[in-house]
Amino acid sequence: MNFSSDNAGPVHPRVMGALIDANEGHAPAYGADRWTGEAVARVREVFEAPEAAVHLVATGTAANALALAALARPWDAVFCTEMAHIHEDECNAPEAFTGGAKLIALPAPLAKLEPEVLRAAMARLGSVHGPQVGPVSVTQATEKGTVYRPEEIRAVAAVARGFGAKVHLDGARLANALVAVGCSPAEMTWKAGVDVVSLGGTKNGLMGAEAVVCFDPTLSWEMELRRKRAAHLFSKHRYLGAQMAATLTDGLWLETARAANAALGLLVEGLRSLGVAPEWEPEANLVFVRLPRAMHQRLRAAGASYHLWEGPLETGDPEEPLLCRLVCDWSVGTGAVDRFLAVAAERPVPATIPPC
Amino acid sequence: MNFSSDNAGPVHPRVMGALIDANEGHAPAYGADRWTGEAVARVREVFEAPEAAVHLVATGTAANALALAALARPWDAVFCTEMAHIHEDECNAPEAFTGGAKLIALPAPLAKLEPEVLRAAMARLGSVHGPQVGPVSVTQATEKGTVYRPEEIRAVAAVARGFGAKVHLDGARLANALVAVGCSPAEMTWKAGVDVVSLGGTKNGLMGAEAVVCFDPTLSWEMELRRKRAAHLFSKHRYLGAQMAATLTDGLWLETARAANAALGLLVEGLRSLGVAPEWEPEANLVFVRLPRAMHQRLRAAGASYHLWEGPLETGDPEEPLLCRLVCDWSVGTGAVDRFLAVAAERPVPATIPPC
Amino acid sequence: MNFSSDNAGPVHPRVMGALIDANEGHAPAYGADRWTGEAVARVREVFEAPEAAVHLVATGTAANALALAALARPWDAVFCTEMAHIHEDECNAPEAFTGGAKLIALPAPLAKLEPEVLRAAMARLGSVHGPQVGPVSVTQATEKGTVYRPEEIRAVAAVARGFGAKVHLDGARLANALVAVGCSPAEMTWKAGVDVVSLGGTKNGLMGAEAVVCFDPTLSWEMELRRKRAAHLFSKHRYLGAQMAATLTDGLWLETARAANAALGLLVEGLRSLGVAPEWEPEANLVFVRLPRAMHQRLRAAGASYHLWEGPLETGDPEEPLLCRLVCDWSVGTGAVDRFLAVAAERPVPATIPPC
Amino acid sequence: MNFSSDNAGPVHPRVMGALIDANEGHAPAYGADRWTGEAVARVREVFEAPEAAVHLVATGTAANALALAALARPWDAVFCTEMAHIHEDECNAPEAFTGGAKLIALPAPLAKLEPEVLRAAMARLGSVHGPQVGPVSVTQATEKGTVYRPEEIRAVAAVARGFGAKVHLDGARLANALVAVGCSPAEMTWKAGVDVVSLGGTKNGLMGAEAVVCFDPTLSWEMELRRKRAAHLFSKHRYLGAQMAATLTDGLWLETARAANAALGLLVEGLRSLGVAPEWEPEANLVFVRLPRAMHQRLRAAGASYHLWEGPLETGDPEEPLLCRLVCDWSVGTGAVDRFLAVAAERPVPATIPPC
Repeated sequence: MNFSSDNAGPVHPRVMGALIDANEGHAPAYGADRWTGEAVARVREVFEAPEAAVHLVATGTAANALALAALARPWDAVFCTEMAHIHEDECNAPEAFTGGAKLIALPAPLAKLEPEVLRAAMARLGSVHGPQVGPVSVTQATEKGTVYRPEEIRAVAAVARGFGAKVHLDGARLANALVAVGCSPAEMTWKAGVDVVSLGGTKNGLMGAEAVVCFDPTLSWEMELRRKRAAHLFSKHRYLGAQMAATLTDGLWLETARAANAALGLLVEGLRSLGVAPEWEPEANLVFVRLPRAMHQRLRAAGASYHLWEGPLETGDPEEPLLCRLVCDWSVGTGAVDRFLAVAAERPVPATIPPC
Repeated sequence: MNFSSDNAGPVHPRVMGALIDANEGHAPAYGADRWTGEAVARVREVFEAPEAAVHLVATGTAANALALAALARPWDAVFCTEMAHIHEDECNAPEAFTGGAKLIALPAPLAKLEPEVLRAAMARLGSVHGPQVGPVSVTQATEKGTVYRPEEIRAVAAVARGFGAKVHLDGARLANALVAVGCSPAEMTWKAGVDVVSLGGTKNGLMGAEAVVCFDPTLSWEMELRRKRAAHLFSKHRYLGAQMAATLTDGLWLETARAANAALGLLVEGLRSLGVAPEWEPEANLVFVRLPRAMHQRLRAAGASYHLWEGPLETGDPEEPLLCRLVCDWSVGTGAVDRFLAVAAERPVPATIPPC
Repeated sequence: MNFSSDNAGPVHPRVMGALIDANEGHAPAYGADRWTGEAVARVREVFEAPEAAVHLVATGTAANALALAALARPWDAVFCTEMAHIHEDECNAPEAFTGGAKLIALPAPLAKLEPEVLRAAMARLGSVHGPQVGPVSVTQATEKGTVYRPEEIRAVAAVARGFGAKVHLDGARLANALVAVGCSPAEMTWKAGVDVVSLGGTKNGLMGAEAVVCFDPTLSWEMELRRKRAAHLFSKHRYLGAQMAATLTDGLWLETARAANAALGLLVEGLRSLGVAPEWEPEANLVFVRLPRAMHQRLRAAGASYHLWEGPLETGDPEEPLLCRLVCDWSVGTGAVDRFLAVAAERPVPATIPPC
Repeated sequence: MNFSSDNAGPVHPRVMGALIDANEGHAPAYGADRWTGEAVARVREVFEAPEAAVHLVATGTAANALALAALARPWDAVFCTEMAHIHEDECNAPEAFTGGAKLIALPAPLAKLEPEVLRAAMARLGSVHGPQVGPVSVTQATEKGTVYRPEEIRAVAAVARGFGAKVHLDGARLANALVAVGCSPAEMTWKAGVDVVSLGGTKNGLMGAEAVVCFDPTLSWEMELRRKRAAHLFSKHRYLGAQMAATLTDGLWLETARAANAALGLLVEGLRSLGVAPEWEPEANLVFVRLPRAMHQRLRAAGASYHLWEGPLETGDPEEPLLCRLVCDWSVGTGAVDRFLAVAAERPVPATIPPC
């Protein structure tokens, strides 16, 4: 019953199979292998961007920080929401990779950047004394489990364009957003004005592989150098390539995302039937709910894992429900959801079914 | 017949097996999993350093750059040899991670830093105007395939200590050096005055896993933060842990290093019998030789892969032999060596035997 | 009638005299001269801190950014108010000098950091994923012309201490605050928990000289190196020393600050009598007022200079008064204030009296 | 008898006079004043570069580091000589300002970069693994007191151009070189292929003012931001402007440089007549000579100041002469030279004549 994060889950069997297949004999290092070639081709294909510069890395923070470094100069401001992963959860990696750009964290109740809030923040800058207007970064699906519609991204990008600024999309959970909205990767990104995408893989069934996708192909060599300088150029690069190629083959990435979203849907439905409604409507594979303290204690006792969002149990009013974040990965399955709900409801718990 | 680099080889079957075993169900992210715990324990065990701070990363450049960042302040000089990987092959990653330290590349004919050369270089610094004396970095086995004896490292470290400076060891091929010299990891490192080791794994049969080993445990939390800020903290950390634990179990890392060194020995012996002597005596798993041009052309035509060290074939005197670097990884096997030597000698080539 | 900033004013005659006196023959470079020695002694004397590390620089941004770099590590958060000079007006210099620390800009209606707001912000941090708790920076007098009482600084510092964090005071207008409150430099700084002060001089009658005052003397050599590396170590250092020594001799710095505060007081009193009350009570040498549009136009036509705080005249409702910032420097004198008020009131303007 | 450095000398009276003249009333801050306007116009005029981007700073290290930052990306190599000020005497400021570029220090017996040495060094780079080819920096006059002829700079620049690299000229002593060679600033810089000049002023009679001159005017805004971010944008900018305008008025900068070179000439002639020949032919205002130990001791006892170039007196063979560097600034005058020579020769010392 692990709902702590989608990075707690295992590697999908088809991805592991691809790794095993790639482990045959020698291969050129540093990305000159055929698996990487195939991965790049698949990324371009799914994004309908035949010339995009595609660079694989192993962590989402690396993808984000490299993407921002390509778009922001050291004296720029980078605009994002207050709960953006790049602001809250990357230990100043974006600042480090950009050479000291300033992240401006804007209020956004549902973690979706509002065009007028962005416009006002950008309009404040301009003199030599302050930071300059730099790129905006949106997260899709958001850190709050909500999802931008393509037209919402387009509206944000239009503001950025008006200031000559570029747009980054942190797509650690892009697949979850795509299957939620039912639009194509191109519609959600470059057709909506996005310049660079961090395409997540690790949270969606890979071992550790993400892609930085620059729709401007002239950034390719610079990105190659930035990646190497950041120590993110893998020597045995075929294993990154094999993972990314596998997930983009036969729609596996959308299949795993659908599985995660579906499990979350079941969980939410079940909790709602127990009187626990989500704080806001979840649209992808994570939900914020306030669990009654007794329910929380039962769940913890039964081994359920998830994040308490507002500090430890010890503090606060014992009558108050606890704000929690629950995340479903592709592997969580109906079994774990059923058991979770049974414990929550004080029903008999069904037998354990291995998650993958 | 791939002798291009030890990072062209595959993952060892026991390591791949460990990855498959680790791919079961959910596990805590970011290093709180049991495979990482086991890896850290094994690293401490083999180094006889029960309190060492051990942090896993996926590239050797990350290990080196993080290690140097822990030892050097931005205004320091870092001392190394002219052919040091950190100076020649990391695209300014050490400069980036240290915040702009200056690498001082010292002449070292066999890639082994000479204590008196180091002393003279350190003695030149000191005023506020220039860089300050910072750490020294030695590579073991060296980029030229030579190996320091423990007393040689001790002599370098003694000079550093005299200036209050720390010592880093780039051990991308540490196992190859250990089996060549026949001493223990502790004797080669902390007992000889080394403060931080980059323990290589990728070149020695892993998919992509290295360890930064700080013998001063108080560096642990700082290193944790440096790793995260550099975007090198893996979420699905168990897969790094499983690799490192596997290679350090039952001496696999020494076994694979011995296989690589042995293959190189056969290769050198065979070339010598063809009248091609190494430029200097190889001690680990790589050799520099001057191949007659016709021999080189036969080998290339037969599909052999290795680095021409002095520019492309087109330039230079056609009568001149070509300086080449040949590297054996754990998997290269006697088959590939035999075929290489047969082509070199214009003998019939034995049937292909898969390398692993 | 220049009320644009206290850096629009000239150098005080006694300071200029000191520069002329220092311009005699040769002197050791880089701070080994006697004027610098005297300046350091005077700084230590006025702060009652006989061992403080004192380093002179020529800009306030340099003083602030160097001070923060000494207190914050690259993965830290630096806490300040939303309108802090370090956040709004230094073009990411603090980020650059710290190696990429993140400034967390906290709401503070009157530009004075509130202890509970700081505590809540610091309490949110701690995991390896986000930035770490780093120093807090307060500005005294604030960017809004308000002034902390020593006990207010002590309350902020107490919160910081509780998290193991250090305290920086941006004292670009420290003298103005000291004469407003009537307490000693020591009471306002180290006795209240401040670790490092940026002691302003330029805005207070110098040509370009500030001091970074570290009460922890062990920071001295590090600060020396940081200053040099930032290209802020002057070769002809005697001219920095002469300025700082002159302003701290016979209380000149407090005299000039008193003159500036007094001029501002006259200005505010005069405007109030015209029905224009300050937005909040000014306590030092700057005020924010809303000028009726017609009054503003008369003043501009008469050559008055000051900042429109909310964008250009063209935008906004013509009936709306305009938020303006007026600053008095030591030299502005009663003449300029009288003329300004006469224009504002549509009275005959008194004859011009040169401001210094 | 101060021959320690040209930054030990005072400000020229005409420059001090200009500072006093500028100290009248209020003036716009941050470079919008008329003195700065005049300085920029004069710089453009003397360089025959009517569109050059000109930015004033207060230290030579700031000028150099900002210039290099405009030309080098963080993953680049910057090529210079082994004794270049940027490599030896700036405490890693170039590394800091460029975001971590690597300085490659090339051997150059007389401190003049040799085109073929540069070509070989540039030709070694290119792969993603190493640093990339970045700008070259030459110093004029050199750190060894030699001077490039325009055609020598052109030859260096031609090599750089062949690799797509830019050229920086560290002109801390440019005026001394110009009067030595007798060519125009344009001939020595942009007509010879130089892209950016650090135009020295401080060593040539100013208090602290240098100009970064970018012949590509499109760099202007970027340089403005880089300067501010480095905390080198002065608020009371008029005092920088007044200095630079004064030295470039009526050829003062060439006059002071001629005085310095002439004094050095007298000194060298005198020493030669005492049997002390320069190590190599000095061409500007500094010389390296080996002083017999007794002569050195007499000079020190008489209060002469200059740099021992090879460590302290205590070390080395007492019979060995000591390598010393002697520098003449504009103010040193024949009096000090005569006294120095008299002490050196054990002649009666002439009466002291104040140096300015």
